[in-house]
Amino acid sequence: MTTIGIDIGGTKIAAGVVDETGRVLAQTRRATDALDPEAIESAVIACVAELRSGYDITGVGVAAAGFVSPNRDGMRFAPNIAWRDYPLRDRLARGIEVPIVIENDANAAGWAEFRFGAGRNARSMVMLTLGTGLGGAIVLDDRLLRGAFGVAAELGHMRVVPSGHYCGCGHEGCWEMYASGRALTRAARNALITDEDRAGRLRELAAADGGKVRGQHVTLAAAEGDPLSRDLVTELGRWVGAGIADLVAILDPELFVIGGGVADTGDLVLEAARASFRDQLSARGYRPEAQIVLAEMGSEAGIVGAADLVRH
Amino acid sequence: MTTIGIDIGGTKIAAGVVDETGRVLAQTRRATDALDPEAIESAVIACVAELRSGYDITGVGVAAAGFVSPNRDGMRFAPNIAWRDYPLRDRLARGIEVPIVIENDANAAGWAEFRFGAGRNARSMVMLTLGTGLGGAIVLDDRLLRGAFGVAAELGHMRVVPSGHYCGCGHEGCWEMYASGRALTRAARNALITDEDRAGRLRELAAADGGKVRGQHVTLAAAEGDPLSRDLVTELGRWVGAGIADLVAILDPELFVIGGGVADTGDLVLEAARASFRDQLSARGYRPEAQIVLAEMGSEAGIVGAADLVRH
Amino acid sequence: MTTIGIDIGGTKIAAGVVDETGRVLAQTRRATDALDPEAIESAVIACVAELRSGYDITGVGVAAAGFVSPNRDGMRFAPNIAWRDYPLRDRLARGIEVPIVIENDANAAGWAEFRFGAGRNARSMVMLTLGTGLGGAIVLDDRLLRGAFGVAAELGHMRVVPSGHYCGCGHEGCWEMYASGRALTRAARNALITDEDRAGRLRELAAADGGKVRGQHVTLAAAEGDPLSRDLVTELGRWVGAGIADLVAILDPELFVIGGGVADTGDLVLEAARASFRDQLSARGYRPEAQIVLAEMGSEAGIVGAADLVRH
Amino acid sequence: MTTIGIDIGGTKIAAGVVDETGRVLAQTRRATDALDPEAIESAVIACVAELRSGYDITGVGVAAAGFVSPNRDGMRFAPNIAWRDYPLRDRLARGIEVPIVIENDANAAGWAEFRFGAGRNARSMVMLTLGTGLGGAIVLDDRLLRGAFGVAAELGHMRVVPSGHYCGCGHEGCWEMYASGRALTRAARNALITDEDRAGRLRELAAADGGKVRGQHVTLAAAEGDPLSRDLVTELGRWVGAGIADLVAILDPELFVIGGGVADTGDLVLEAARASFRDQLSARGYRPEAQIVLAEMGSEAGIVGAADLVRH
Repeated sequence: MTTIGIDIGGTKIAAGVVDETGRVLAQTRRATDALDPEAIESAVIACVAELRSGYDITGVGVAAAGFVSPNRDGMRFAPNIAWRDYPLRDRLARGIEVPIVIENDANAAGWAEFRFGAGRNARSMVMLTLGTGLGGAIVLDDRLLRGAFGVAAELGHMRVVPSGHYCGCGHEGCWEMYASGRALTRAARNALITDEDRAGRLRELAAADGGKVRGQHVTLAAAEGDPLSRDLVTELGRWVGAGIADLVAILDPELFVIGGGVADTGDLVLEAARASFRDQLSARGYRPEAQIVLAEMGSEAGIVGAADLVRH
Repeated sequence: MTTIGIDIGGTKIAAGVVDETGRVLAQTRRATDALDPEAIESAVIACVAELRSGYDITGVGVAAAGFVSPNRDGMRFAPNIAWRDYPLRDRLARGIEVPIVIENDANAAGWAEFRFGAGRNARSMVMLTLGTGLGGAIVLDDRLLRGAFGVAAELGHMRVVPSGHYCGCGHEGCWEMYASGRALTRAARNALITDEDRAGRLRELAAADGGKVRGQHVTLAAAEGDPLSRDLVTELGRWVGAGIADLVAILDPELFVIGGGVADTGDLVLEAARASFRDQLSARGYRPEAQIVLAEMGSEAGIVGAADLVRH
Repeated sequence: MTTIGIDIGGTKIAAGVVDETGRVLAQTRRATDALDPEAIESAVIACVAELRSGYDITGVGVAAAGFVSPNRDGMRFAPNIAWRDYPLRDRLARGIEVPIVIENDANAAGWAEFRFGAGRNARSMVMLTLGTGLGGAIVLDDRLLRGAFGVAAELGHMRVVPSGHYCGCGHEGCWEMYASGRALTRAARNALITDEDRAGRLRELAAADGGKVRGQHVTLAAAEGDPLSRDLVTELGRWVGAGIADLVAILDPELFVIGGGVADTGDLVLEAARASFRDQLSARGYRPEAQIVLAEMGSEAGIVGAADLVRH
Repeated sequence: MTTIGIDIGGTKIAAGVVDETGRVLAQTRRATDALDPEAIESAVIACVAELRSGYDITGVGVAAAGFVSPNRDGMRFAPNIAWRDYPLRDRLARGIEVPIVIENDANAAGWAEFRFGAGRNARSMVMLTLGTGLGGAIVLDDRLLRGAFGVAAELGHMRVVPSGHYCGCGHEGCWEMYASGRALTRAARNALITDEDRAGRLRELAAADGGKVRGQHVTLAAAEGDPLSRDLVTELGRWVGAGIADLVAILDPELFVIGGGVADTGDLVLEAARASFRDQLSARGYRPEAQIVLAEMGSEAGIVGAADLVRH
């Protein structure tokens, strides 16, 4: 039983044929015009048509950023694409005959880790995707938590600091503003001001890349061993661990999986997260401790997870 | 199919025969000696023996404060009773022939609300018990969330303020220290110092009750209309709502049920919680909003929930 | 004994002849080219030359934003003008024969209030200028506090929230980010997202003024009675009061004077500041309470204060 | 010109003859009965009588904890002694003919450091006494800051964390609750719960000293090299530095002097304070940096400062 998984991003659509073991058998992609839903639909339909030749496809899973409707047939709202209470499944069904399921992209990626990646031996798991923002997915007792209204696991918007950093969501102190690529960018820009003497490597990388320092420069410099960048990633890791301690108090999962670009710093962010998690874990010593590990599925996680969810 | 529910507290054991609709058909109780596990077991067995005469009992559910083992056969740890990795089910089975299930008391109370009380029409729900501390229970897709290690829904230990109030758990800023009877007690004692002019009614109630002001005095005075006490309950309600907003970001349930002694202030705490929840709800306007209501089951919730859980 | 006061801003130079009672007898102004220190000096010298005819001038006081050197002869650093360890006094002395004193502009404005405005009957006073940023001046025992290094009273950079809002200074949680026009702008933009239903008037004002809502729209709408804007100003006022309580713990002055554009909201910001100050004042009831009042000197405060400081 | 300095504590009165260079020429002491103001006065008068024989005494300075009246003739309020708007100077004058001045004890100790100790070469200085609580003294332009109402430099009650630790003053988040012996005690008790494995040495010291761990055990163990205790002192030092950064933004002094029992940890607390001060110092690099050093005067600082203040 092979299915197709499609990951609709802000700038491109990636699609793949995925088998029951999570292997990607074939892939294709198209550019996205975020302002033109019809063009997106045509591109998705074209991807499916292209991939179907040669495979017996039993369903199509579509992942996209935003709020998915509870019965997984449409997008309530998307941050990057002009969708608002949009019947995406019906629109796609005009050109795709097999069953279609819509899912949030972070959920799809988390599901892929749960089924085939770092969480394949777990029964409950939380995935944290530290990309530009902080995406989340929650699996409890082998089931993806979708929420009463389809918008569970918006983990980046837990408030970790009252009156804290402003978030694009309009609120203050969201976890995402302390634990994401965006957070790293902001922290690095501040460090250029407050820690000028140690910021040489970041200035170099920024200068070579158009001028403004960004999170990616920090993860790169941290990997090289730059002390300031390592401090910045460590601080971010501490916030990751602090939020994990909150999630443990609520969900008590056995596993946390860290993915996304910031996770490329590997052990650095992981060790900091583990340490601050342990520091803040309630009733430590009276309970087993959840594990925190890196994701394994890479950038295909969205495709694989979406493809698999259409089977569940 | 009638079952028995038993609620083991720090000072007493309450037991009842409960039918499938959640009605309590008969009740009994015994005093608890928290230091003597054997005496507790004898008392539980005696309660069951007393209640079984005249009813066809198919199971016994036992609720107690503390960490329950994942397979619900024992107590990993209890704050009030001398249990530590304690095989409570086997111990009780010496004198009880029907199936026995152990459950955390807040979970049992929450389950009762879900099945027969304020949550009976919901499919997902979070119960907050604002007693001395802040207890929680989480029901998702009709299932009680128990956690990978049996200790989910320790909601009182989410951190809501970094470097915030000290908690008995050894950490700082736990939600419980801002939203519980204990929090109300502490806030009231501070108000006696900082808001002396308005604290007359609280001083009176405290003086008539042994000297020190406690949370109960505040809820009582608030019900009478005392302005300072109403301010204190309102402030507590704001913290309740703030934590609810975090839980919505994570769990996206359709309903929150507020119980425990502080909930006796009714609309006052409820309105404050609703307002601050709305203020802090991420993506408000793009999603349905969870409801926040008062609990309906009263003090028998533990018995009823425990009795029902043995059937599930 | 008349002196001249000069206020060098980012876009204009304002100058005036001021008598010993703080009256402005004559005024003139020039445009500023912030990138060209020599042009600024020529403009200042021209202002002085113009104003001296007809008055017996005994000194010139010059106010500008930035860090003034301890002996008041130059600018260590300016945020808006290309000065860095700049010998401004000597440069100006080439074209001005009377004594010259350089002073920070917030200090000059505060001194004017102390000598001739809201603080004229006080012996110790703190001035808070709630403009785009939050400027401060401190007068203790009739003396302007300049600091060991000339940079006292940078009150906007007290940290009021650990891990709080990012500040342009590179740090987090600075008071200025909670109590200034910039803070009001940011809070209003967030309210457009989180409190859409009540933001109609702010959207109107912003639309009529180029599109983006700014702090000035909020103070204007608050003056009209717009409920959301009044809430935003009240919240800002609470942060003003909270910081004042800190300053009282440190300095114990008898008076706080609130000026700057945000103070145009008058009683609204004042009442909120007073209330939160009282809520947070340590040892209230055991000490007299500092007064909090509005500034009286208006936009000429910088000129008047600079002119008077050259006499002291 | 020799004077007498008297330090009235909660349990004892210490008195000494002090010369113009700050040397203590003779000393005596009496026990204090905090509930009996008359007994305290008799004891003070007796101390003075005893010390006057053999010295030509021109004045008596009296230091005590609490709020001193602005003209230094009485105690507005004392935390430990039954004084409330108490005319202490007149009461003492019944038995002492030379001029008497009353001063807050932290102010007296700070003045001693300024005149004869770590601050003798400074013109502006802040003293932080990290004892059970956090006391402060501020010297600006060679003058002790007393405040409009006599209660300046209550530095321990600056709020460093909104909704933070409860303080005995009735408020939340006071600096004293993060940077004092009391804070160390509380942090250590928490560490016994949350960091059990590393708390062995603290448990030993507490057991050998009556059972409960106290701040003194932490400073002792830290001096021995105990890793957990060193972490606790370091964390305290960070809060010291964070508050110092706030004081620099306000007062811009050239020097901070750290005294009190916690300062016995020496370099450990000092290095942590310096590092976090630098991390949080606004406009670092554009201004000279205040120095942070240890106090030099020891336990006689109160006597020496009080004795010297009667001359000023």
